[in-house]
Amino acid sequence: MSTVSVLAADLEALIARALEVSNTSPANATSVARALTQAEIDGQKGHGLSRVPSYAAQARVGKVDGHATPKLTRTRAATFMIDVAGGFAYPALDLAIAELPAIAAESGIAAAGFVRSHHFGVAGRHVERLAEQGLLALTLSNTPQAMAAWGGRRALFGTNPIAFAAPRRDAPPLVIDMALSEVARGRIVTAAQKGEPIPLGWAVDKNGQPTTDAKAALAGTLVPAGGAKGAALALMVETLAVALTGANFAYEASSFLDAEGPSPGAGQLLIAIDPAGFAGADAFAGRFAMLAGLIEADEGARLPGSRRLARRAEAATAGLKVDAKLFAEVQALAAARKA
Amino acid sequence: MSTVSVLAADLEALIARALEVSNTSPANATSVARALTQAEIDGQKGHGLSRVPSYAAQARVGKVDGHATPKLTRTRAATFMIDVAGGFAYPALDLAIAELPAIAAESGIAAAGFVRSHHFGVAGRHVERLAEQGLLALTLSNTPQAMAAWGGRRALFGTNPIAFAAPRRDAPPLVIDMALSEVARGRIVTAAQKGEPIPLGWAVDKNGQPTTDAKAALAGTLVPAGGAKGAALALMVETLAVALTGANFAYEASSFLDAEGPSPGAGQLLIAIDPAGFAGADAFAGRFAMLAGLIEADEGARLPGSRRLARRAEAATAGLKVDAKLFAEVQALAAARKA
Repeated sequence: MSTVSVLAADLEALIARALEVSNTSPANATSVARALTQAEIDGQKGHGLSRVPSYAAQARVGKVDGHATPKLTRTRAATFMIDVAGGFAYPALDLAIAELPAIAAESGIAAAGFVRSHHFGVAGRHVERLAEQGLLALTLSNTPQAMAAWGGRRALFGTNPIAFAAPRRDAPPLVIDMALSEVARGRIVTAAQKGEPIPLGWAVDKNGQPTTDAKAALAGTLVPAGGAKGAALALMVETLAVALTGANFAYEASSFLDAEGPSPGAGQLLIAIDPAGFAGADAFAGRFAMLAGLIEADEGARLPGSRRLARRAEAATAGLKVDAKLFAEVQALAAARKA
Repeated sequence: MSTVSVLAADLEALIARALEVSNTSPANATSVARALTQAEIDGQKGHGLSRVPSYAAQARVGKVDGHATPKLTRTRAATFMIDVAGGFAYPALDLAIAELPAIAAESGIAAAGFVRSHHFGVAGRHVERLAEQGLLALTLSNTPQAMAAWGGRRALFGTNPIAFAAPRRDAPPLVIDMALSEVARGRIVTAAQKGEPIPLGWAVDKNGQPTTDAKAALAGTLVPAGGAKGAALALMVETLAVALTGANFAYEASSFLDAEGPSPGAGQLLIAIDPAGFAGADAFAGRFAMLAGLIEADEGARLPGSRRLARRAEAATAGLKVDAKLFAEVQALAAARKA
């Protein structure tokens, strides 16, 4: 793969421009560009620059409404709903992340539900932003259909990421971020493209039988991480992020990746917890530092998210390296006439 | 194994009596007996009658304070702490379950943190009681040390159960209840007692190496369900149930099973969510019914918790069968002079 080096600020401006000319408001384009660039910085390339062509195509045909303004409705003292209104998820997340800390300070815990939403990118980043403000945060999202209920054959659940973050006094927040499938679907797509087999345990075929055939796997369903436990957690995510918010279940949601069909209408839930509502911020900081120290002192162990921090530090000094072909494609998009 | 049949009400009265004569207040004995009997009804024998001898022994020596009264402190509008005060967890859970619904109705979401707590038994039952009142609920607890951070050797985390429940209109609540270890420690104890090997993937030895030797496994740590993902979730539980509440981490907590040492001082978090704070109770009921129906219609799939409901129905008609030796032991305890 041939790569080009680019400054983060330049990449962000390029992405914003590519979206602006693709039927997206400047404010929304800025929010999306910031999120995708952060994903590149953190080495999460599947949620970074690679999304721009499909986002732009979706905005051009209206599968995502690039001009949507997320609408917040305060439903109860500590909860609100955000109607993403078929737009990009990031502007709605920005709004929720701005509102949650004050409510959490008052209530001890606060939550936002998102409906008519879209791909929400690196789940861990959203909770990390709340942890940077001293809160613990948990988020759940569904994704288009990928996994079956335990023992079943029909892809009723998405890969359904769960992310959690907690503040630290003398270090960046702890961030945990996981999809509930054993592996990302993208790894099976890659194997199918190369004509290579996949390991047993990644997926089952359309009859629910374990398979090493990548093509048969793509016609079947992904295996949940931890077997029945991962499947149960995926059901929990559909329940909290979708049934609770009134969004589309995984099996109803259209793809995040192409410009076909209606808006995915995915659902999300974002919970913020103020340690002052429990043992207190000082107590939390002290207790968490003790546990983190013991994990770091245990040979071979590491805190989740350490690799992301290493990549972020590397990007700050060495800049970003992105795929040359993809970069040229986004440059061409940005140079296009406004849609 | 020789068994005896007993009515649930008679078993509950017997357990209460065994605890009352073991340095436990009548109110606390009643609460504990109800929880342990419900575990027997649901076929969760590891959290049922089998706990009575160790609970009684702990109350007699004061490792658990049978006379403790849980103390509730309202910390913020939607959160409170319960100081379990070294007593049994169940009376504290009763208190939280009584208080949470009104707060959740006002705030949309509410949470209780538990500190200086003890074994909280069948995690799923606590959230189910909230779901029976129309709420979604999530609970997390730590347990004494059992698992290492991913890649590590030291047992810093417990098996750390997560339980979730959601109400249904025409059916009992959905209940998801899982420990985060691949298997329960009890299965390895049993294998060690019988001198049998265990499958690879259940545990690692004290050097972090996979082992089939049950005795070596008991000197090592349990493998988390789903590998790195289960380990990360266990860390999330230590963070939310312990660092947030100021309780004892898994590696600090004494055993729930013997009468040695100080009170375990475990921590728990219980979150209740009112669907009225999101898309509304009717919308939730309709959406969830649709998903549940599709899962039940998918050949081979089932909703988590179905086995528990089947056992509960069987117990209602056929009564309970308990181990004869254990039953005689508890009868002897109940007949003892008051401690």
